[in-house]
This record gives sequence, C-alpha cells and structure tokens, in this order.
Amino acid sequence: MITVALAKGALLKDSVARFLKAGLDFTALLDPDNRQLMVPSSCGRARALLVRNGDVPVYVAYGQAQLGVVGYDVLREHQMPVAQLVDLGFGGCHLAVAVKATSGYRRASDLPPHCRVASKFTHCAKGFFEEIDLPVELVHLTGSVELGPITGMAEAIVDLVATGRTLKENGLVSIEELFHSTARLIGNPLSLRLDSGELQEIVEAVRDNDQLRKASS
Amino acid sequence: MITVALAKGALLKDSVARFLKAGLDFTALLDPDNRQLMVPSSCGRARALLVRNGDVPVYVAYGQAQLGVVGYDVLREHQMPVAQLVDLGFGGCHLAVAVKATSGYRRASDLPPHCRVASKFTHCAKGFFEEIDLPVELVHLTGSVELGPITGMAEAIVDLVATGRTLKENGLVSIEELFHSTARLIGNPLSLRLDSGELQEIVEAVRDNDQLRKASS
Repeated sequence: MITVALAKGALLKDSVARFLKAGLDFTALLDPDNRQLMVPSSCGRARALLVRNGDVPVYVAYGQAQLGVVGYDVLREHQMPVAQLVDLGFGGCHLAVAVKATSGYRRASDLPPHCRVASKFTHCAKGFFEEIDLPVELVHLTGSVELGPITGMAEAIVDLVATGRTLKENGLVSIEELFHSTARLIGNPLSLRLDSGELQEIVEAVRDNDQLRKASS
Repeated sequence: MITVALAKGALLKDSVARFLKAGLDFTALLDPDNRQLMVPSSCGRARALLVRNGDVPVYVAYGQAQLGVVGYDVLREHQMPVAQLVDLGFGGCHLAVAVKATSGYRRASDLPPHCRVASKFTHCAKGFFEEIDLPVELVHLTGSVELGPITGMAEAIVDLVATGRTLKENGLVSIEELFHSTARLIGNPLSLRLDSGELQEIVEAVRDNDQLRKASS
C-alpha cells in the first residue's frame, strides 16, 4: 500500500488534482465535511495522510509515507532527509524580507546591524543574513509575523509573500527576495531505492502531467 | 498605553471575559467578522494583540505586550523570561503520554527503550523521559499528533488532553500525566518593575475576580 502525505491548506486542492490525473483519486479529502486524516484512494491502491505543511517531510523522512507534496519553503527551512522528485509548479510564492513602507529601508543591507527580524523561517533567515554579513537578532514567531514591525518588536520580517496583499494591508513592503518557492513532489529515499516499479510509475505519471502542463502553457 | 497579548483559539473567550470583569473591554475580538489583530479596548486605556498561543510569551518577553494570557503548557515548553502572575483556572487540560489502546503498555516505563515518541511538546517530553531514565527518539510534529501511532511512526505520543475525545476517536489511551495546565496571566518583568501602579491595578482586578470565582465555586 502506497501512502502519500498531503499538506492541509493552500496546496491541497492542486495536490489532489495532480494525483487524480496520475490515477490516484483522493478527492474525498476536499469534502468540507471530511474529518478523516487518513483516506484511501478510490482504487484502493494507495492512501493519503492529511497533515500540516511542516509535518509532510517528517512522515516522508520516517517512511510512513513514501511520497508527499510540500512547499519548497518547508524543505529549505526543515532540511529533512527526503528526495525532491518533481517541481509541481503550483503554490508559487517567495520568501522575502519586508519592512514598514515608511521605514526608508530599500534593501536588506540597509537594515541596522543587530536589529530584530521576526520570522517563521528563522533557519532560512539566519542563512540569508549571514550571507550578507549583517548580524541580526532573530525572533521566532509561529503566525501573524506582520505584527512584528507594527508593534515595534522587529525592524523587519522574513515571510512568504504570494499576492502581497497581507503586506499591503499592514503597511509593509517587500525589499528583497531570498528564494522562490513552489510545491514539490518528495519521496522517501529508501522506499525509492527498494521500489519494484509501483512508486516510480506514480512519480512518472505526476511528472508527465507536469510536462503536459508546461507544454500547454 | 497598556498592551495585552491574547491567544487565538480555545482560551480567547474566557480571556476576554476576565479582562472585561477587570474593566478592559476587548469583546470586539470575539466578533467572528473581526480581522484586526490589534484592537483597542472600548475605554481607550489599553489594546489587545491577537496572536498564536505560542507567540504570546514572545510578545510579553520582548515587552511589546506588558501582559498576556497563555496556557501553562506553552510556558513550560518555550521557557521564555516572563513573570507568571495569576492562575486563571480556565482552559484546564493535561499533558499526557498516550499509546494505542491495543498496545498493552500501561505506564510510560513499559515503553521499549529507543522507541519513537511523537509530540508538539518535545522539550517537555525530553525532560519527562530523562527523568524516568528511558531513552526515546522524539519526533517533532506540529499538528495531528494522534496520527503518529496510527501510521506506525511512533509507539507513543505526548500531547494535551482535555476531554479525551480525540484520543478515544483515534483508538488511543492516556497512560501517564506529565502535568496539569491552565491559563495563566503573565507579565513582562521589566514593565512590572517600572510600573507606576496602572499595571498592578489590572493584575489585582484580574486576581480579585479570580478569587471571587474560587470563593463562589
């Protein structure tokens, strides 16, 4: 039985659609009344685990799911030992440094040394500020990071930006991008190595419909 | 201006009620249409920040909020430098070790050495298993921890249990309690030391209506 870990939230609808095209029907997960966290595919060949974004690579790394779909941002932040198989293209956003629009900072290197930077992505943020050689104090938050500059706790934030609407609504502006992120198909390395063909077939079907999508766009 | 950090979710309604009795009206936060994360009290003396549970002690520790309400479980897990002022009594639950009901384990010390334990509270779990001298591999999850034993990833979980309904629905049973948790009023130590009386007045009003509650129960 193949198990696929899918992330709750913004990536779910597209993830289910991609697996459906590859022959695995997990549309039951999209039913708003669904409370099940483990759902069999309609063909009975596979099942899906519905978990938090950040937990997808954990289930795949430990082999409880052989495949998973998760944002590249999560892979960069958590560094779990999983294989990246296909860039699925959807869920596009970027991790960016943002400041108050009124602050006068126009790039990350304008920020004063030892300023505070709030983020859910403190690992990525640490790497970025080390690279530009700017010592900052990172404050780990788990949500509503835009409150950091508004309350005066932080001069800047490092957060995911998709449409830019949340930034704008909070008087913030993006001044530098760390990297672009999209949804990725990931796999458990050992399962892939021991695979007798069944996993590879699904990976290829998902990859193929990815190439079809690219060719048609 | 006094700022109070309140946690979204299960503790919010009771937190707002307690501040209301103490003279600060943040009922606007309970309006389901409210999208504001920073809301002034109706008297204009104070404002509330609506943040994630785990972020309350961060805002209080950094002094962006002088007071906050958060579960004792969060304080134990994150160990931020904040002052615990009043045990508010509501939001009761306990952090517990749970296993599959069919597993045969009846206490934590029955678990096999080097087994896997999944938890959102890995800091608390680490302390507990060190204390009973049982080496375990902790797996940090951010949600739906009950999937750990169901998928076979973990022999046990350490998670918050309030009514026990989630455990029961997932065929799990609590076998040992780490500690009991309730909502706590916390404060920024420096703000409390420099306070000219205004903060202390609110703390006393919240404490008094806590004692009234206890006397009448």
